[in-house]
Amino acid sequence: MSDNNPPAKLKVAMLVYPRLTLLDLAGPQSLWAMQAETYLVWQDLNPVITDTDLVLQPTHTFETCPSDIDILCVPGGFGAWDVLGNQKAMEFLARAAADARYVTGICFGTIIMAAAGILDGYKAATHWATYPMLEMLGVEGVRERVVIDRNRITGGGVTAGIDFGLSVLSELRGETVAKATQLLIEYDPKPPFDVGSPDRAGEELTQIAASLVQADFENNAMPAVQAAAERRKPLS
Amino acid sequence: MSDNNPPAKLKVAMLVYPRLTLLDLAGPQSLWAMQAETYLVWQDLNPVITDTDLVLQPTHTFETCPSDIDILCVPGGFGAWDVLGNQKAMEFLARAAADARYVTGICFGTIIMAAAGILDGYKAATHWATYPMLEMLGVEGVRERVVIDRNRITGGGVTAGIDFGLSVLSELRGETVAKATQLLIEYDPKPPFDVGSPDRAGEELTQIAASLVQADFENNAMPAVQAAAERRKPLS
Repeated sequence: MSDNNPPAKLKVAMLVYPRLTLLDLAGPQSLWAMQAETYLVWQDLNPVITDTDLVLQPTHTFETCPSDIDILCVPGGFGAWDVLGNQKAMEFLARAAADARYVTGICFGTIIMAAAGILDGYKAATHWATYPMLEMLGVEGVRERVVIDRNRITGGGVTAGIDFGLSVLSELRGETVAKATQLLIEYDPKPPFDVGSPDRAGEELTQIAASLVQADFENNAMPAVQAAAERRKPLS
Repeated sequence: MSDNNPPAKLKVAMLVYPRLTLLDLAGPQSLWAMQAETYLVWQDLNPVITDTDLVLQPTHTFETCPSDIDILCVPGGFGAWDVLGNQKAMEFLARAAADARYVTGICFGTIIMAAAGILDGYKAATHWATYPMLEMLGVEGVRERVVIDRNRITGGGVTAGIDFGLSVLSELRGETVAKATQLLIEYDPKPPFDVGSPDRAGEELTQIAASLVQADFENNAMPAVQAAAERRKPLS
């Protein structure tokens, strides 16, 4: 799309890692892309396989990512639990968050942010199933789809990234740009079912959905979050 | 996520091409991925740069894509206009659509479908800005977010792919799977603005959004669609 007299491109740095959730990244990144250049940042430049088996190519490492970024964004995914124990990733996030204009994340990505200490003293959203983990890491969870607390903007599960992405765009480029973008992507959602949150879905369906992640949470997520919480204790 | 006694994976073939809209593909593909293996199909296996500069790796060519696919899906993007003149792509789509259980597309992707003749005699949705092109190609447009006409399922602009993807999943795997998926991706949308369609956006904002695509439509889309319509005449 063309754009008369465009302002300087936004610099967006998104953490990528194996088994991240593609839609967590593609949602907000697509909203920002017309206004931004995107850095996909990981510990090395090896291709990263997402949850859907589609492959992403990191563009920068923790060492080569520019420091003057406008939006730092941490997407979620079942690979998040492995990132919690990745000291270099934690250090990169702490360093990048100190300089970034907006420090953002969604879904399980906010658990990574909490483990990195970059949500200390901020309220945050996360996926409906992971609020206990946020609290184990000392961060106050707010059960809303998008939570804005000063320059920390966090969203709930996966598709919250689209709502959240538009909010961030509005902050950085103004309401008209955000609204025109929303219209161009025809974001006038009409979900076929009204079951997008536990409140709406009811107990039985929530149990079914929770059962799909239960084994992963017990075997992978909880031990990783507990270990991260232990490591953080001396700092708090 | 785990799944007890899962049924055979769905086979999903998605057309990819340079300058496709990443979110057109990532939305539905993410919804289907737990139940599916995805083939990204193009004329060769060279990496494809999407609208957001993120790169996708085709997995199959027109010649190697399996024929017994459950969902054929054509995403949109500003690169669509070049695909209209790609005879091999048109032939692949005609061949694949003849065998596929569901033949689907969204956004500008439905213009590609129309040019390939695989919407002949079907009603279809497309992006709000491209209904005239659908009609130039002899396809009856219906101004709804998702249009289901027998085994053709088409959606409006970009984010319609999420609503549409859930509808397709429900058809193929049942309502409980679709609902549990919707809850896991927390699809309880709360757009920050109510401007996701021309009706809601009003005339002024619609003009602003339309102006962003005007040059591309005049210089690239319309000539390509006119040429495709000319080529189709002897067939109709």
